[in-house]
Amino acid sequence: MFVEIDRNSSISIKKQLYDALTYKILNKELPAGHRMPSSRQLSDQLSIARNTVTEIYDQLVAESYLNTYQGRGTFVAQLGDCKISSSQKKDFSEKEDTSDKDIISLVAGRPDLESFPDKQWLKACRDVLETHSQRFFDYGETNGYTPFRKSLVKYLKYHKGIYCSYNQIIVTNGTKHAAYLIASALKHKYSKVMIESPAVDFIARTFHQNGYDVTAAPTDNNGMIVENLNESTPSLIYTSPAHQFPLGGTMPICRRQKLLDFAAANGHIVLEDDYDSEFRYKGAPVNSLYQLNSERVIHLGSFSKTLSPALRLGYIVVPDKLVDVFNVYQDSVGNPVNTLNQAALNELITSGVYESHIYKMTKVYKAKMKMLTQSLSDAFAESIIINGCAIGLHISVEFTDIMFNIKNKEIFRDNGLDIELTSEYNVDKPSSSCNSLIIGFGHLNTEQIQQAIQRLKKAIDDIKRKN
Amino acid sequence: MFVEIDRNSSISIKKQLYDALTYKILNKELPAGHRMPSSRQLSDQLSIARNTVTEIYDQLVAESYLNTYQGRGTFVAQLGDCKISSSQKKDFSEKEDTSDKDIISLVAGRPDLESFPDKQWLKACRDVLETHSQRFFDYGETNGYTPFRKSLVKYLKYHKGIYCSYNQIIVTNGTKHAAYLIASALKHKYSKVMIESPAVDFIARTFHQNGYDVTAAPTDNNGMIVENLNESTPSLIYTSPAHQFPLGGTMPICRRQKLLDFAAANGHIVLEDDYDSEFRYKGAPVNSLYQLNSERVIHLGSFSKTLSPALRLGYIVVPDKLVDVFNVYQDSVGNPVNTLNQAALNELITSGVYESHIYKMTKVYKAKMKMLTQSLSDAFAESIIINGCAIGLHISVEFTDIMFNIKNKEIFRDNGLDIELTSEYNVDKPSSSCNSLIIGFGHLNTEQIQQAIQRLKKAIDDIKRKN
Repeated sequence: MFVEIDRNSSISIKKQLYDALTYKILNKELPAGHRMPSSRQLSDQLSIARNTVTEIYDQLVAESYLNTYQGRGTFVAQLGDCKISSSQKKDFSEKEDTSDKDIISLVAGRPDLESFPDKQWLKACRDVLETHSQRFFDYGETNGYTPFRKSLVKYLKYHKGIYCSYNQIIVTNGTKHAAYLIASALKHKYSKVMIESPAVDFIARTFHQNGYDVTAAPTDNNGMIVENLNESTPSLIYTSPAHQFPLGGTMPICRRQKLLDFAAANGHIVLEDDYDSEFRYKGAPVNSLYQLNSERVIHLGSFSKTLSPALRLGYIVVPDKLVDVFNVYQDSVGNPVNTLNQAALNELITSGVYESHIYKMTKVYKAKMKMLTQSLSDAFAESIIINGCAIGLHISVEFTDIMFNIKNKEIFRDNGLDIELTSEYNVDKPSSSCNSLIIGFGHLNTEQIQQAIQRLKKAIDDIKRKN
Repeated sequence: MFVEIDRNSSISIKKQLYDALTYKILNKELPAGHRMPSSRQLSDQLSIARNTVTEIYDQLVAESYLNTYQGRGTFVAQLGDCKISSSQKKDFSEKEDTSDKDIISLVAGRPDLESFPDKQWLKACRDVLETHSQRFFDYGETNGYTPFRKSLVKYLKYHKGIYCSYNQIIVTNGTKHAAYLIASALKHKYSKVMIESPAVDFIARTFHQNGYDVTAAPTDNNGMIVENLNESTPSLIYTSPAHQFPLGGTMPICRRQKLLDFAAANGHIVLEDDYDSEFRYKGAPVNSLYQLNSERVIHLGSFSKTLSPALRLGYIVVPDKLVDVFNVYQDSVGNPVNTLNQAALNELITSGVYESHIYKMTKVYKAKMKMLTQSLSDAFAESIIINGCAIGLHISVEFTDIMFNIKNKEIFRDNGLDIELTSEYNVDKPSSSCNSLIIGFGHLNTEQIQQAIQRLKKAIDDIKRKN
């Protein structure tokens, strides 16, 4: 007959028969009204079980490819012209990535990827899986796995001085998700957001996409310039006070108090993005804004820097009075965070592995930071000011004797560097020139750091020559 | 002095000193202008290293808690009134969940959680981690881990007859994320969505939240009633043709063709939600809509039913001509899916473990389905019609001799059952009465199924008596 069955194929005989028949019917090789062979005939012809044929005939009748009339037989139905798509024959050739191998990226945001505690992570995964608890395999709790949130309560208390209940914590897929979640959950209460500028780029985009009126708040080396704020419509205010991104500043206590007084007086809510303050190289962890006013601050935390951005794990702490608003939103959208990963990270935290990892990595990053600032001083002496070197995985470097514009990036690239200007992160008008560069170093080893600064020196000489 | 240092605390001495000093400054125990002891005095008093004190003093100066005047000493700065939040003293007592133990849930959507292939999953995780490849720990590729998408290309070809390139595939956190992603990425091109009704509840919500004009398309036991559609503004059309949720029908080929002709004539895009068609108990896997017209269909797939909803893994296949639109969107928001999990699942697929698991689970679910339909027939004989039993993890049951309303759910619950009416999923007006119930059975064992149907029988007798 007209159907070929390949007994060596990995595709089941049922599926082959179904595919062949539907293809022929849709392409009119078996036209409307055509009488199909009986199931006995077809099974004999193809040497396949009659049951298989009957089952597929039944299915094709159910899906209206065929009609069957008691005592008369089975016939091809009258169908439209829509066929199996011709794209099936297309050749989907694949482009391979061709990325330049000798570029050192100084773009900020990535931690040391070689130091991921893979053995401990695997052990935690095994421990979780070996409990065979169904809760790990089911749809997760809307605000995140409760034992994990309870561990976070303790962690936040000891490491950030944040006192909260686990029901104020929502586990997120990281800060992008947190921004989206906040923008969505609060958009019926707030329609404006003030964002410190420069700031990480997805914040403005997320709020803009959610219909917010976005304004930029000027920012200097001490963080957002709070003194200039004068919005009286209740709004959201985004800031990264522990380690301003990208400028690097830590917001002083007087500005923090002014910001919170301003928020309290006008009904604003402050979004405190604390993306990397776990790594502090001098002194003690900074007090959080949340600590100063837990009714006006949503605190955003992440494991992307402390462990790995691949995990997609973070959390927000919301004020008591906003818990219900977030619950309503979360109930409606569900939580997108993998429960097994939450449970594994919970193991790392409760067993102390997470804390030891941060302790170990703080030393690693401190050594890198020292190497970086030393290399910069050696290369540029008095012509630079380094900002943000007490905390985190990036610094900003102000040059006193040169302005950069966006076109200079090509010269950096010609010298083997991927590097960004701080002005690329301006929230309002991305200005094309500024005197400061961002240097992310978390992902580099000390050799790469030294080489990068040599290249930077040469690139800047090139830029000066061309000016 | 005024600071107590606890040497047995797990909190570092630096942090204790920082916390104690900032607390006292903010609470005016150390008033503005107060002269601080010298670092030598304080280190002697507290018997801690002088370096520690200097470091914290430096930090408090940097954060403007203190001012230092050359040769005069260190003084408390003039600050505002914003103190360390009083919520720190609050007792965050926790409510424990008290959930009824003897309720059998027939709510649809959960697979057999005891059968998650945990050993194989763990092995895949170990294999991934042991490669020590940095790409697994970095921020992921925006559309998902490429080797995983390439495996999906092969999988889709052999198992769903879908021919596509990996650049048409976007890895998602499951179908909720897919719906959100589509609604967001396409909202500048489309402003209307037609949703088959009844349908899974988050679809209408997601599009509504994204500002779409949502209309309900009536649906019967053969899926969406395509014949009634008459929208000429280019729109999105949501349907679940393989196994309509919740009614259970498979859309016949004639309707599929009409739907796609209608879409092509008016510039519509069809969203084909294929959430559970991997489990087919009779015949062969149904042809997808995507197969019939790859230019008009976005195909939505998920691993929540085949493996576990806790993984938060799924994918969409988008038409070639929409790839750019989705790329722009994805570039702006980033991909929220854990790379390690994508790599682990990729291992399961390429090693054949995933396919064997589906094969094994199809037999498990088939046995459950048989037990379920047999128990229902035994209990209700001719007074019911069972829909949707060829595919998936739920059926709908129409009763010919009784109407249910939402208040009857209490009677079901009194009889130890959590069960939903199909009308609870109506997209437009949730009607309070209908004659059909949804029974999800994937997560139940055969004993629970039998017991559930006995309870159902008794509950329905109770309802009839009360009517």
